[in-house]
Amino acid sequence: MTDLTHFDEAGASRMVDVGDKPITHRLARASGIVRMQPATRQLILDRKLAKGDVLEVARLAGIMAAKRTGELIPLCHPLPLDAVSIAFSEVDQDALRIEATAEVTAKTGVEMEALTAVSVAALTIYDMCKSVDRAMQIEFIQLEEKSGGRSGHFTR
Amino acid sequence: MTDLTHFDEAGASRMVDVGDKPITHRLARASGIVRMQPATRQLILDRKLAKGDVLEVARLAGIMAAKRTGELIPLCHPLPLDAVSIAFSEVDQDALRIEATAEVTAKTGVEMEALTAVSVAALTIYDMCKSVDRAMQIEFIQLEEKSGGRSGHFTR
Amino acid sequence: MTDLTHFDEAGASRMVDVGDKPITHRLARASGIVRMQPATRQLILDRKLAKGDVLEVARLAGIMAAKRTGELIPLCHPLPLDAVSIAFSEVDQDALRIEATAEVTAKTGVEMEALTAVSVAALTIYDMCKSVDRAMQIEFIQLEEKSGGRSGHFTR
Amino acid sequence: MTDLTHFDEAGASRMVDVGDKPITHRLARASGIVRMQPATRQLILDRKLAKGDVLEVARLAGIMAAKRTGELIPLCHPLPLDAVSIAFSEVDQDALRIEATAEVTAKTGVEMEALTAVSVAALTIYDMCKSVDRAMQIEFIQLEEKSGGRSGHFTR
Amino acid sequence: MTDLTHFDEAGASRMVDVGDKPITHRLARASGIVRMQPATRQLILDRKLAKGDVLEVARLAGIMAAKRTGELIPLCHPLPLDAVSIAFSEVDQDALRIEATAEVTAKTGVEMEALTAVSVAALTIYDMCKSVDRAMQIEFIQLEEKSGGRSGHFTR
Amino acid sequence: MTDLTHFDEAGASRMVDVGDKPITHRLARASGIVRMQPATRQLILDRKLAKGDVLEVARLAGIMAAKRTGELIPLCHPLPLDAVSIAFSEVDQDALRIEATAEVTAKTGVEMEALTAVSVAALTIYDMCKSVDRAMQIEFIQLEEKSGGRSGHFTR
Repeated sequence: MTDLTHFDEAGASRMVDVGDKPITHRLARASGIVRMQPATRQLILDRKLAKGDVLEVARLAGIMAAKRTGELIPLCHPLPLDAVSIAFSEVDQDALRIEATAEVTAKTGVEMEALTAVSVAALTIYDMCKSVDRAMQIEFIQLEEKSGGRSGHFTR
Repeated sequence: MTDLTHFDEAGASRMVDVGDKPITHRLARASGIVRMQPATRQLILDRKLAKGDVLEVARLAGIMAAKRTGELIPLCHPLPLDAVSIAFSEVDQDALRIEATAEVTAKTGVEMEALTAVSVAALTIYDMCKSVDRAMQIEFIQLEEKSGGRSGHFTR
Repeated sequence: MTDLTHFDEAGASRMVDVGDKPITHRLARASGIVRMQPATRQLILDRKLAKGDVLEVARLAGIMAAKRTGELIPLCHPLPLDAVSIAFSEVDQDALRIEATAEVTAKTGVEMEALTAVSVAALTIYDMCKSVDRAMQIEFIQLEEKSGGRSGHFTR
Repeated sequence: MTDLTHFDEAGASRMVDVGDKPITHRLARASGIVRMQPATRQLILDRKLAKGDVLEVARLAGIMAAKRTGELIPLCHPLPLDAVSIAFSEVDQDALRIEATAEVTAKTGVEMEALTAVSVAALTIYDMCKSVDRAMQIEFIQLEEKSGGRSGHFTR
Repeated sequence: MTDLTHFDEAGASRMVDVGDKPITHRLARASGIVRMQPATRQLILDRKLAKGDVLEVARLAGIMAAKRTGELIPLCHPLPLDAVSIAFSEVDQDALRIEATAEVTAKTGVEMEALTAVSVAALTIYDMCKSVDRAMQIEFIQLEEKSGGRSGHFTR
Repeated sequence: MTDLTHFDEAGASRMVDVGDKPITHRLARASGIVRMQPATRQLILDRKLAKGDVLEVARLAGIMAAKRTGELIPLCHPLPLDAVSIAFSEVDQDALRIEATAEVTAKTGVEMEALTAVSVAALTIYDMCKSVDRAMQIEFIQLEEKSGGRSGHFTR
């Protein structure tokens, strides 16, 4: 198994040097599930019932968090994102799925930006609905696809 | 089902007015799982093999993120946290569990702070190990306990 | 005319000492106008035409900015806001009005938070619509009401 | 009228993809007015009377805010600014004018950075002088000039 | 020697629980020296020669950084500062001294806020003058006084 | 002596225009000393005694602060860092030395990033150990090396 690149030979954490890596177009797609009571899901999907748009709030929170990934994840490089988008879809009777796509033209990948967007969007759904469903769960946050770097095209 | 408190009668999002709520001691405990290859888990747990301490990096990232919850979650109140701590435990052969506890003496609860700490600690584990295990999953982020508010003591 | 409180006797800027001021409930209300082409205004108000909700994005941006007022305005005290809300109303044929209300239980007032919420909401409307109306203007950002401090109740 | 670019076909907000746009030098100039009592204006302009330099504080606040535009405006791209400057000028007997210029070599424009710089500089003047003139107004924040992008050279 | 309070019994870092500590008025005073060429010092002190006020920029940077101490120092509590001020004095022929005072009414002390204010003010002096004196040194950043907590009144 | 570049001809502070400067690889190395009681130093170096790793916490704080240098230092350009690392070494019986290296491929140098990393790492050591040694001093923060810009290779 290869070494963890965020530690040097002496075990010290560091921001990996990407100075010599080529600048390429990079894309990452990540997803996650928010599990909830069917009634909560119905409330979110029916904006009239909810009297507001939970998913639009979550979407903006996720996009804004993606831009601050480098502040949150200690050894992540700050990246000048080209694009971020978040889509929601209906899965099962008791869950919503979040998918975030991030793109950049840079020396290093945007997996963490896509994963952070999904995570903060999910946390925001929880925050918006916790008064009616405190037991919601955030599940299966994972990388779906990654392209553009030296490590090749990854799809789950 | 009650209304979502983050929307007003007209459906506009808002920071709920907590001005009249009493200041009480509040605690929230949240957890999550990072699922990974057994070899990755072994690498994390054996600091000599990893040449560094992944979990300590993740712990600090989670604690620091908890302090910025009000910046990340759009309608969350900014809170002067009394304490935040994060513990890791070994579950299964292919997973690590994260548990965060947040405390505050304030007018509103700290669920979002505890959940944010777990989420960002999990994302940081992913970031530190993604070079060896890109398929890791973050699972079952959930509230475990909440005490101190009007809604009473919640345990999952 | 009294001195500017943000300078000391020697002319140095400073965060004014509020240590001895009583903690009271404080409210501030501020407003502003975004002037635009009638067609732009129509586009914003007709969410189907716009294919999205410009005002909800602006509202969230304003609320989130209010929470960060202490980071933006150099000598402002950081405040644990109790509540922030933003309302939009239709004025004239070529303008929308923004009104923000901020509340806190603290030693100092929340005028700057309310004014910052209005300003950033207005900037966000500009950003969302600049592709169709680059000449929009932000006008008449002003304090409407302030209560709760030593200086008494102010209304414009 | 063209669509609002910050929404996709389904009405979801997004950070527009600028990945394919060429990197060019871009400049934006924005302005705004702070209306105040003539005595307040006199106080600001006479640094001895004020015992400090209100405009220098406002200038720094505006420059620092320009650098954080991508954090404040939800769908704005983070930009590595080449330059930001702010100039003040005396207009009328009861007003000061703020003009900010921002430059970048990037795929997207810096209008929002220039407008944010003006807005936060204006808010800071308000904050510095509110103890003597609570009724000040911020007026006519607008784009004056924009160059360097596909949409050509704009001047008001 | 007592244990380091920021680690628990198992060696994990944590934000110390201050929930049971009384809220008291707390003050901390810290200082530091910036050593430079006499000509650089002369340039800073003679605002006409410098064509601007280096120390005022440094002062604002220090005050603003003090407000963000809880974001910079991983295990620091976020604190609602009552007051921050920074004074400069002339020492020796080749140095300037910075002194910052921070005050809060809270459960924990403001040493880190005062020390952060001094550090960032010193870094800003360096940044403003590095084009003329790259070899400047920041020296002797230290706590001068601390009062208000359980540990009693400290003076160096 | 040349002028201070952060002021324009009229004495106004500004972010210097780097639009016409070439993009080159740039490196900066800075260092600093934390002076403490020999027993404190022993405690830090013996992780078992300390029950935790003070230097790893300080290292992460320094790296994370380097990424936010543009937010802290008013007229600094925001930079997309390629790499940041921090090393500690044992000097004297009563001191530890911190050395930070920052690299970027950009139009302007990374001195401030390296100096900020050292400063915040030093402040974090102070914070972690202040309960046992309040009189610690941060000394001799200075630039050690700088390469890659128009001003040539600097070494102290």
